[in-house]
Amino acid sequence: MREGVRIGFVPTMGALHEGHRALIRAARLRCDALVVSIFVNPKQFGPQEDLVKYPRPISQDRALCRKEGVDVCFEPTVEAMYPSGFQTMVTLPMIARRWEGEVRPHHFTGVATVVTKLFGIVRPRIALFGQKDFQQSALVRQLAKDLNLGVEIVVCPTVREADGLAMSSRNIYLSPDDRIRAATLYKSLQAGAEVIRRGVTDGETVRSAMVRVIKNEPAVTIDYLAVCDPTTLDPLSSVTRQAVLLGAVRIGATRLIDNILVSAKQARRSFE
Amino acid sequence: MREGVRIGFVPTMGALHEGHRALIRAARLRCDALVVSIFVNPKQFGPQEDLVKYPRPISQDRALCRKEGVDVCFEPTVEAMYPSGFQTMVTLPMIARRWEGEVRPHHFTGVATVVTKLFGIVRPRIALFGQKDFQQSALVRQLAKDLNLGVEIVVCPTVREADGLAMSSRNIYLSPDDRIRAATLYKSLQAGAEVIRRGVTDGETVRSAMVRVIKNEPAVTIDYLAVCDPTTLDPLSSVTRQAVLLGAVRIGATRLIDNILVSAKQARRSFE
Repeated sequence: MREGVRIGFVPTMGALHEGHRALIRAARLRCDALVVSIFVNPKQFGPQEDLVKYPRPISQDRALCRKEGVDVCFEPTVEAMYPSGFQTMVTLPMIARRWEGEVRPHHFTGVATVVTKLFGIVRPRIALFGQKDFQQSALVRQLAKDLNLGVEIVVCPTVREADGLAMSSRNIYLSPDDRIRAATLYKSLQAGAEVIRRGVTDGETVRSAMVRVIKNEPAVTIDYLAVCDPTTLDPLSSVTRQAVLLGAVRIGATRLIDNILVSAKQARRSFE
Repeated sequence: MREGVRIGFVPTMGALHEGHRALIRAARLRCDALVVSIFVNPKQFGPQEDLVKYPRPISQDRALCRKEGVDVCFEPTVEAMYPSGFQTMVTLPMIARRWEGEVRPHHFTGVATVVTKLFGIVRPRIALFGQKDFQQSALVRQLAKDLNLGVEIVVCPTVREADGLAMSSRNIYLSPDDRIRAATLYKSLQAGAEVIRRGVTDGETVRSAMVRVIKNEPAVTIDYLAVCDPTTLDPLSSVTRQAVLLGAVRIGATRLIDNILVSAKQARRSFE
């Protein structure tokens, strides 16, 4: 790192979409040199998950980076990142124990370990993550603070399709019919947010409104729907300030996650 | 970190002795700016261990640092290092599972976590550790490599008292009688090394020679004595190249560790 050169960093698993492009553009505005990493990190996939079939359209990804003025496109091999004898693991037991961490037991250890490594290699001043992976962004924020990594974590709003579906590299797994049904997840989160905005504070009432929307679409099954504190990700029995509505569903063999942040009616009033 | 300014770092728990002084002087020769940290890290002590009574002669420590030309003496508080909400842990399951890690279950997670944090804060180019804590130095070396911390780890030879006892902040716990008996540990390691130098390769034969020396001193009890590979710390059934002889004993309420590195007779010949 040269003094005065502010490195911005967007870590990705490739298969870049409009959500990544938004991160790259937001980074561009905030740094002198911009690094994008493309690394499908095996350590954050479970044994039954989609590591092998995860999309890897590397030429398109490089073209997008070139077009967006990325200075360095960092594409390490698995062997370079995890050579023989590699063993160090970074864990955040409190943030990782619920929601995605419960469904995907070693996922967040894989994320925290690779992010620590990438920060060590790239030495960025700021790193940008998408809000779509809300729990991941909370984890990375806590990780950077706890380990004094000296990296400012910036979380950018989720970019959505016209019907509200959050952009994700995994959306290509959806059949045309399932693609239409996939918008149900965002509709469910919106229904919960609407209930909060109308002044309801009881967490279980909000959650029920979310559940009801998913239940109307029999092809979509709930992994979890939750009303949580945005920092600790603990469930809220009462929404008095900010809440994050978290959702994960399965449609056929595809798993989708999404979230929205919402302020309680009384919290919004206090700002007016 | 300024480009061209090479920061050297000696992390300590204070109670500085001649071993630390040797690390500081070795660092001085290899860097432009020298940082010593003094932090009695609670996370590397077990609940039954000596955290509270660990010596903290801070004025003497500062005087030694001043005399040795240390540029920054970094003395963080426990609250600054582990604020409310802190949760990240760094673990090295393979190196940490044996020897000290077996006797002190969370010790090396505490060490790996605090070293990662201190490297993040200090951003050194090189960091120096004493060979006395051999397993710790192997762990830190692997940690720095695995997490791409960009720090060169330098391990300096153990500094010893006239009778061979390795310098340690914990030696002050020894009664005068136990202080005399404490040299038995080094004598035991030397006996093992001598057997190897005479051409014996069988690990168990070497270990027996070490055990015999300790058994001659009834006030000293063995925690472990082992003949190991210096990188993996796995026990060696046959010493054909390098070995580290590791020992931990108890004398009264005090626990002492020590080690020596030794080359097999045939390995030494190949250098001649």
